[in-house]
Amino acid sequence: MRTLKLIVAYDGTNYHGFQRQENAITVQQILENRLTKLCNEKITLNGSGRTDTGVHACGQVVSFITNGTIPTENLLKALNGLLPDDIVISSAEEVSEEFHARFHACWKRYKYEILQNKIHDPFKRNYVWQINKQLDLVAMQKAAQLLVGTHDFTFFQSATSVKKSPIKTIYRAHWQQDGDKLEFCIEGNSFLYHMVRNIVWNLVAVGLGKKTIATFESELKNASTHSKYAPAPPQGLYLDYVSYEEYLL
Amino acid sequence: MRTLKLIVAYDGTNYHGFQRQENAITVQQILENRLTKLCNEKITLNGSGRTDTGVHACGQVVSFITNGTIPTENLLKALNGLLPDDIVISSAEEVSEEFHARFHACWKRYKYEILQNKIHDPFKRNYVWQINKQLDLVAMQKAAQLLVGTHDFTFFQSATSVKKSPIKTIYRAHWQQDGDKLEFCIEGNSFLYHMVRNIVWNLVAVGLGKKTIATFESELKNASTHSKYAPAPPQGLYLDYVSYEEYLL
Repeated sequence: MRTLKLIVAYDGTNYHGFQRQENAITVQQILENRLTKLCNEKITLNGSGRTDTGVHACGQVVSFITNGTIPTENLLKALNGLLPDDIVISSAEEVSEEFHARFHACWKRYKYEILQNKIHDPFKRNYVWQINKQLDLVAMQKAAQLLVGTHDFTFFQSATSVKKSPIKTIYRAHWQQDGDKLEFCIEGNSFLYHMVRNIVWNLVAVGLGKKTIATFESELKNASTHSKYAPAPPQGLYLDYVSYEEYLL
Repeated sequence: MRTLKLIVAYDGTNYHGFQRQENAITVQQILENRLTKLCNEKITLNGSGRTDTGVHACGQVVSFITNGTIPTENLLKALNGLLPDDIVISSAEEVSEEFHARFHACWKRYKYEILQNKIHDPFKRNYVWQINKQLDLVAMQKAAQLLVGTHDFTFFQSATSVKKSPIKTIYRAHWQQDGDKLEFCIEGNSFLYHMVRNIVWNLVAVGLGKKTIATFESELKNASTHSKYAPAPPQGLYLDYVSYEEYLL
């Protein structure tokens, strides 16, 4: 019996998210199906967490137990040969038997991409949020910095969330500009359902002047209401990295 | 009666090419349908030329005649509002009555994008040709330069081509490297069916060492056979620009 850990990149455009579902094609289902074929035994995956329909991953992590003895390098090649071209395994390694992709994750990094453009770019429609208004990046950066630390993130949780502790620790929340591209990077120990996309919408509201930094701060601190905005669109969001080591502060 | 000229960008991934067809969704059909709705009269488009299934355009040009009086700026906004997000109009202008997008085109520029990478990038699968082998760019550049001038391009024509004159003039054929991205730019007065994609495959064959520059040259000059390679995949090809002015040599 071996436990294997895979790092997976996928374009979420054509999937109903990561997690297995009845009557809808998901990334997990495709992976399990191909692994079951390859290992010649029923494979069940643990993923580090869900991603929604249309959300992407550069570094999703999955783990599974197998009786098979196939070397990880061969598994990597053979699996990539069987997978559709919107799912790619970038790494396969054998890990300690008790490793679990979800339970042992220490922190995660998400990225959110915005393109500020006058004319909609048809080639980016599935990969960024396109905004044709001017954003005040300085204000967005100031508001983002307020997220760092341990807070009750109830305001940024979807109203329909399953009850989990809304207390989360954010280590880093930062905007980076590169020409007309804005990239938001957020690192934290754990995230609530829709939390990153709700944060992004509220930061964009600050950037558009629809909300002051002071309002953003008071909403973050007053954990009794929910954001009235819809979450930022899924196609700008990427699960970038999952770490199994403590965050180095 | 006015003649209007539109510049259109589209992601060809989800279309059966540009030109109207029975039983398949094409870019022309979507454009004509939305324009007919907007102008409240049956609109028939002339496009500068066809593009195949999966091929993209940054600067396709179409023209049409209308009795409507809608200002071009309003037409641009309203049409973009009606179009799906993989088709975008970047310019609309009134032109002389006799203007015809195909008959009056003087030259065109195509671009072809290759990504040299070890691991397949799932986010680029519809937008570049991904090659995980090393290419000899110096050899490819030398071979490309042989294309410049007036030649019988029969070798680079698809065997099933409709009979048109295979004599074409290429003004420029040039590779540009940007990190792991290779971009081929070709400008000419006119192109045969599959000509750019056949040229790209043969240049890549030179880059892979499967064909010498001398063989490439003799095949170009001996216009009696056809390339044995399949055309390079469609998703790397972009109709970049159509000019209605003579090429300035």
